[in-house]
Amino acid sequence: MRLVDERQLTDIALGAGILGTGGGGDPYIGTLLARDAIREHGPVEVVDLDEVPDDAFVIPSAMMGAPTVMVEKLPSGDEVVAAFRKLERHLGQKATHTMPIEIGGLNSVIPFCLAARERLPVIDADLMGRAFPELQMCMPTLFGGKAAPMAIADDKGNASIIDAIDNRWTERLARSQTIDMGCAALIGLYPLAAARLRDCTIPNTLRMAEELGRLVRETREAHGDPAAVVPKYLGGVQLFKGKVVDVHRRTEGGFARAEVRIEGLHDDAGTTLRLQTQNEHLVAERDGEVLASVPDLIIVLDSETGQPITTEDLRYGFRVTVVAAPCDPRWRTEAGLEVVGPRYFGYDFDFVPIEERAKVG
Amino acid sequence: MRLVDERQLTDIALGAGILGTGGGGDPYIGTLLARDAIREHGPVEVVDLDEVPDDAFVIPSAMMGAPTVMVEKLPSGDEVVAAFRKLERHLGQKATHTMPIEIGGLNSVIPFCLAARERLPVIDADLMGRAFPELQMCMPTLFGGKAAPMAIADDKGNASIIDAIDNRWTERLARSQTIDMGCAALIGLYPLAAARLRDCTIPNTLRMAEELGRLVRETREAHGDPAAVVPKYLGGVQLFKGKVVDVHRRTEGGFARAEVRIEGLHDDAGTTLRLQTQNEHLVAERDGEVLASVPDLIIVLDSETGQPITTEDLRYGFRVTVVAAPCDPRWRTEAGLEVVGPRYFGYDFDFVPIEERAKVG
Repeated sequence: MRLVDERQLTDIALGAGILGTGGGGDPYIGTLLARDAIREHGPVEVVDLDEVPDDAFVIPSAMMGAPTVMVEKLPSGDEVVAAFRKLERHLGQKATHTMPIEIGGLNSVIPFCLAARERLPVIDADLMGRAFPELQMCMPTLFGGKAAPMAIADDKGNASIIDAIDNRWTERLARSQTIDMGCAALIGLYPLAAARLRDCTIPNTLRMAEELGRLVRETREAHGDPAAVVPKYLGGVQLFKGKVVDVHRRTEGGFARAEVRIEGLHDDAGTTLRLQTQNEHLVAERDGEVLASVPDLIIVLDSETGQPITTEDLRYGFRVTVVAAPCDPRWRTEAGLEVVGPRYFGYDFDFVPIEERAKVG
Repeated sequence: MRLVDERQLTDIALGAGILGTGGGGDPYIGTLLARDAIREHGPVEVVDLDEVPDDAFVIPSAMMGAPTVMVEKLPSGDEVVAAFRKLERHLGQKATHTMPIEIGGLNSVIPFCLAARERLPVIDADLMGRAFPELQMCMPTLFGGKAAPMAIADDKGNASIIDAIDNRWTERLARSQTIDMGCAALIGLYPLAAARLRDCTIPNTLRMAEELGRLVRETREAHGDPAAVVPKYLGGVQLFKGKVVDVHRRTEGGFARAEVRIEGLHDDAGTTLRLQTQNEHLVAERDGEVLASVPDLIIVLDSETGQPITTEDLRYGFRVTVVAAPCDPRWRTEAGLEVVGPRYFGYDFDFVPIEERAKVG
């Protein structure tokens, strides 16, 4: 068990912003929310997977919606408590822990807002090991775990319980509710008994986010090259350095979709990188050749500061470093690729691990 | 208390089809469902409002969606039980009675499918006194009664509990779920304590539907003029006789919308009636002059058989008699017109009661 305070949460938000691959919400907003919650309620207990007792009952918590909207419509923290309590009441069982469903700048921090208010411990793990755009893209889906019943609540006081037959139906029903609720809502879902945690989670991702965040911050403070430390830390590869020349962005079906063109600089001069995005970056192509794709991580960093740039923040003129890194190996299985592989997202090519596409490390 | 069997339910479905003003579902489908339920489970107890004990707890039940879809996707009866049980579990209270939320060919019968299966009595009353297209258009809305928490279930096994801040939000959230569920879903909503029944319901509408249905059937069997008995029974007026020459129909936002043109025959020759419809008929205009509008009832009958023609069945060549009849007086108050008056539906004119527009009776 360790206590996480404001400073550590700021590092977590930064590191998780990197692992969030453009989605999962803005780390700056995550930091603001976390700061408020911890200033008001004190530091939050974080426990490792092997510290979770056998009779634990976990309800993960998150924000759902289009990040483009989430930045303009901050959650107050009360909505996530509302969603959480609603699901507890519906299940007739109090949760002993919460945890993130994904690692992203905002969504790694939302459980801390809840945990600080409700005096609950947060488990150091998540359900994706990165951020993905849809609810069923969580590890429990591969192991028969159900997202439902889930609770969804908005800032106006509306709330629903969704109890769908499978996790894709849960996503579909929750997505329409999110759109009705103004494209941003707070959710509690994937209620998990302790025995399911090993299979269904990616462990230590909060610690990893914190280390990565601290590393980038300290490298920045020491006037080093913070964008360069990221692929090294993640066992990944630098894909491209360039300048954003076009961002075609639309909020569609409750998602922030974008197509981004980046013109190469330095070694990459004369070539163009194209990113395709649905909340998170899905595919990176250089001059028509795929360099990396889901489920591997595609990360866009400010070349100078190493700051992760979220989908909604990307704009013309930004100097960026694009990094790719391997995802959790379970996503690379046949079952995993069915849920989060390029073909699920409508791309007509097979997944090739980043280690096979490029020299890594 | 009386027992309602197959024959009576067939009359109820026919009469309710007339009172349903084009919506509330097809009486023929209502009849089929009712027949099945009663053949399998026996007749259903119907009780009057003053027979309901003080400690009763009522959950009304209905089908929600676009009637154009509902005719192709029949409910099995299990979904309405699923929605009902879901809401009971959520509320932690067993219902003692059910009742219709509206009087329509299908929706007057759905509570009987539930009641037969669950051995519950049905209260002889409904929440509209006719059919309306949206969930908040129920009498409780005028008296502070809440549609939520409501349950919604589909044929696939999906179900949600919606707990919105007001009845328009309940409609909005439930409508998206209905669309996701394939534009047809079963619902339990407006949970009501016995003490609220007087204010919040229109009494005796099942008996009225049954009488009206029997009257039309018997007049038809006696080779009389069944379309002529309807305005007489309802204290209404025959607006128009003619032939349908155009139906412009679209399923939009989860509703069946239509614009219908009818060319006059006999006394109405040389003039054209235009009906505007959102599941139910909202406005009838002759050559640009409004003849009748919501919340008064606008009813389209087959001129020969007196059979009510639902929105989704209306088509070119039909010989029809259009009737208007007064709605429950509570809908004509300022508060009522705010919820179901022509301006709510986007029409730029004030409601004028049919008795003032035309000679009635």
